[in-house]
Amino acid sequence: MFNELPVFKKLVRNADVMNRPENHLKHLLKIKTRFETFSRTGAGLFYDFSRQRINTDTLNLLFDLAEDRGLKNRFRAMSEGEKANRTENRAALHMSARSFIDEPVYVDKKNVMPEIMEVRKEIEDFTEKVRSGKICGSEGKPFKSIVVTGIGGSHLGSEFVSTALAHLADNNLSIHYLANVDIHAFGRVISEIDPERTLWIIISKSYTTTETLANEELARAFMKEQVAEPEKHFAAVTGKGNHKNSHLNSVTQTFRMFDFIGGRYSVSSAVGCLPLSLYLGYDKFEKFLKGAHEMDRHAIEAPACENLPLIAALISVWNNDFLGYPAQAIIPYADPLSRLAAHVQQLYMESNGKSVTEDGTPLTETQAGVMIFGEPGTCAQHSFFQMAHQGRPFPIDFIGVAKAWYDQFSHRFKGVTNHEQLWANLIAQPLALAQGTDDTDGSFADNTNDKSKFFPGNRPSSTLVIESLSPENIGRLLAFYEARTIYEGFIWGINPFDQFGVELGKRGAADIREKIARGDNDTDPGTQFYLDLVKNAGFAKDKGSHR
Amino acid sequence: MFNELPVFKKLVRNADVMNRPENHLKHLLKIKTRFETFSRTGAGLFYDFSRQRINTDTLNLLFDLAEDRGLKNRFRAMSEGEKANRTENRAALHMSARSFIDEPVYVDKKNVMPEIMEVRKEIEDFTEKVRSGKICGSEGKPFKSIVVTGIGGSHLGSEFVSTALAHLADNNLSIHYLANVDIHAFGRVISEIDPERTLWIIISKSYTTTETLANEELARAFMKEQVAEPEKHFAAVTGKGNHKNSHLNSVTQTFRMFDFIGGRYSVSSAVGCLPLSLYLGYDKFEKFLKGAHEMDRHAIEAPACENLPLIAALISVWNNDFLGYPAQAIIPYADPLSRLAAHVQQLYMESNGKSVTEDGTPLTETQAGVMIFGEPGTCAQHSFFQMAHQGRPFPIDFIGVAKAWYDQFSHRFKGVTNHEQLWANLIAQPLALAQGTDDTDGSFADNTNDKSKFFPGNRPSSTLVIESLSPENIGRLLAFYEARTIYEGFIWGINPFDQFGVELGKRGAADIREKIARGDNDTDPGTQFYLDLVKNAGFAKDKGSHR
Repeated sequence: MFNELPVFKKLVRNADVMNRPENHLKHLLKIKTRFETFSRTGAGLFYDFSRQRINTDTLNLLFDLAEDRGLKNRFRAMSEGEKANRTENRAALHMSARSFIDEPVYVDKKNVMPEIMEVRKEIEDFTEKVRSGKICGSEGKPFKSIVVTGIGGSHLGSEFVSTALAHLADNNLSIHYLANVDIHAFGRVISEIDPERTLWIIISKSYTTTETLANEELARAFMKEQVAEPEKHFAAVTGKGNHKNSHLNSVTQTFRMFDFIGGRYSVSSAVGCLPLSLYLGYDKFEKFLKGAHEMDRHAIEAPACENLPLIAALISVWNNDFLGYPAQAIIPYADPLSRLAAHVQQLYMESNGKSVTEDGTPLTETQAGVMIFGEPGTCAQHSFFQMAHQGRPFPIDFIGVAKAWYDQFSHRFKGVTNHEQLWANLIAQPLALAQGTDDTDGSFADNTNDKSKFFPGNRPSSTLVIESLSPENIGRLLAFYEARTIYEGFIWGINPFDQFGVELGKRGAADIREKIARGDNDTDPGTQFYLDLVKNAGFAKDKGSHR
Repeated sequence: MFNELPVFKKLVRNADVMNRPENHLKHLLKIKTRFETFSRTGAGLFYDFSRQRINTDTLNLLFDLAEDRGLKNRFRAMSEGEKANRTENRAALHMSARSFIDEPVYVDKKNVMPEIMEVRKEIEDFTEKVRSGKICGSEGKPFKSIVVTGIGGSHLGSEFVSTALAHLADNNLSIHYLANVDIHAFGRVISEIDPERTLWIIISKSYTTTETLANEELARAFMKEQVAEPEKHFAAVTGKGNHKNSHLNSVTQTFRMFDFIGGRYSVSSAVGCLPLSLYLGYDKFEKFLKGAHEMDRHAIEAPACENLPLIAALISVWNNDFLGYPAQAIIPYADPLSRLAAHVQQLYMESNGKSVTEDGTPLTETQAGVMIFGEPGTCAQHSFFQMAHQGRPFPIDFIGVAKAWYDQFSHRFKGVTNHEQLWANLIAQPLALAQGTDDTDGSFADNTNDKSKFFPGNRPSSTLVIESLSPENIGRLLAFYEARTIYEGFIWGINPFDQFGVELGKRGAADIREKIARGDNDTDPGTQFYLDLVKNAGFAKDKGSHR
């Protein structure tokens, strides 16, 4: 267990030291070498953790921890096909899905690279045919919209990437997401598309995901009324073995998922590859894969003291288990990264939101994953940053983009372009959070009793910089957060690849669904109330509005 | 101070009781009267808090707390024009902006209702003229798009409501949001609009908000190249007194904001009224106001024991200060409510993310506001619910919609419609979270050592139900969260209407902006690195990518 290591106790003692007033960030930041000491470049990303509440002792102890936990060996073994998903006895080879190295990777003595490359090639061919109009709809019209029908791991990653790279889409195809089983989602989607020019991509590894299959059935019923040959308007991404069931027969093409790639890590597999390649063109999608691959090699090969995702994982565990922060915000200063936080929220909280190690031992002295939330800056500054500065503190990952995509808008306001204005904020916020300001300096407070204008500071953050919103950089960013998430899981010794926690609710929903379908009653008065409400599609009369 | 009250100590003792194993929710939920005891209907909303970790003693103590803190009197006084925003010496009359009661409300001895009604009427008239084409663009074409240019309180509320009611928009006008100063946001917006048919609505109370003015200047420079008379394409919403500066002269019309309505509470004022009325039509927007008004009257008039937002505030404080949960999730089982959590995140965290009372005394024994996050269900189930069930626990507000808007899609999968499937999940999840399941019952775990399939349960939640996605119900929901937020602020004695915490970062950004504009250097090496990065629009050569 992590907390039984000698280094754990040393870190606890170091946290006591860092909690002393003399180690407030406002003092630490005066050390001129600090920025140089606590920042790194790797795989095209720049990572500045100089505003974290650490000193060189902390960092060295954290590297000892990395060593003691054998993190790098475990990560490399995972990349080579070891069954890193131990509770489910599966490999975790999302990195192979974007590998460009001509070397075999063995799972159960079988080299999986040929089938991975085959799927990639199939998607490249399919993309070319769809975008050139060689594959088209029932009425002979080229496709203009794709509806990505999948939920969770089949949704959020692609949504993040397609939003981040929307400026590179050539409007050949628009992209829409149908994830929620809520009928309002379906209603919205069909209001956005022209059925005769729409390709539905059904994504489900097991082909048993209730939401996705319910939406597929709705889509098929809808398309049957719109076109002569609806099967020409469906493609599937699935790991289902023989591809022979009635659903999978009636699609234009099926693309294979593998059981060694989990949903939340599947953006680089056919799950993300098919929709993103159709949306952006295969060449741009391949650049995304190459960026992710570069970060993978860095995460595997760079020594701990230079390894960005590994350092980020160590700091995250430090903030969580030693300084006691229960949550973390991700604030990209880039509007197109608006869905990054939602993607990392799933990636990280589903991977590390656990309380037992992979061999079944409950975590006692430590807590695994924290809560993740975020919105883009500068918007977040005008929203919840009040709390960041003066309320309950939470560590922040700031993310910056060095170069703007739009050179043409260089109008200046107050002497700077919008991009420079954005950066002025991105530079200032981490400093303000770290340094705070005393009410006694007179700059904010009108008198020393006015604590409402007191900023305690000492609020930790990191800043990650990518050079631009290119496909390569989005790939690097995605792979950075994947590797960081996994490295954290390995520190606690939990399995970051299973998700047994979703099963109980699923089973309960199936029970209730059967009750609704059969019109059964329930012995629990609360449950019965809701069953009645569903049956009546509204409140019963005796539960009407009153004050 | 809240924590000096005798009832505070009683609540601390009650929390000890509720933390005992025998008060696990799995036991409490077996009490047949529980649902009846811990649920309420009011102002068209149904509120079920039977899965909160409370008993009747808790609830009675919380009502004592409400009494001791004089909550209802303070709330009523606020509604009648008292300067509830004490640190800024302002009234807080967002409820008057949607009042339909023909009674005066005095601020500084002046009845403010006539000017409120006047603005509402101006917007009604303007809406009619724009939607009928009487007011049109420079080239005589009717407007087809509006770009809402504002940030924070001028953005998130309208975005939430327009997303929630998109099914009611008649496609007369599309709505776009330009909030972020990031140039990528501007680039996206202009790719979505036809300039000749676009009306830009500039929203800034002070007309000094940097992001908004920078975006306005860009928009004006852009429009100048597109149309002959760009001023016909701009309208403004502002509290700026004389409306005579150069900006405000060159608009087709200006609508007034009042200093007694704060940004995050301003959806019902001209801030939300102008864009939403244009988007939906004034009649539908007025229905939204009427729903909010109904909830306001309930929040003011209903006795504490029947008052939904007051009870919700008490439970939120209970979860925060007595049970120790630092965050809360908002999970609407309705896809169109996808921006509710972002809106409440701002509303609540900016209002209650504070550490001093309104008279300047630091909070010591208690902590004010928690962190808020959320995504729609069932999507969230496939994302971060792993943590909700087996990791770090957080209370959840589940939100349900009794009746679906789309009757036409009644296709059944596994015997139920999508809407029923959604509800099966919404009924099952709170129960699964509350009850959990022992590994020893054999239903999940293969053997008793396998703790990875153990669900501890005892995870609290509430369920809020609205009857449908009508404008009235969205108004009720919005007003519910506003009232709940304010009631919580009053419990701690903080001022939920100021936001001094945003000032330090603003000032820092202005300093950095000037350095960028003048090309100045900085003595801090980290700051200098970023200044160079902005100047070079990329990494310097010696900071290139390496492993």
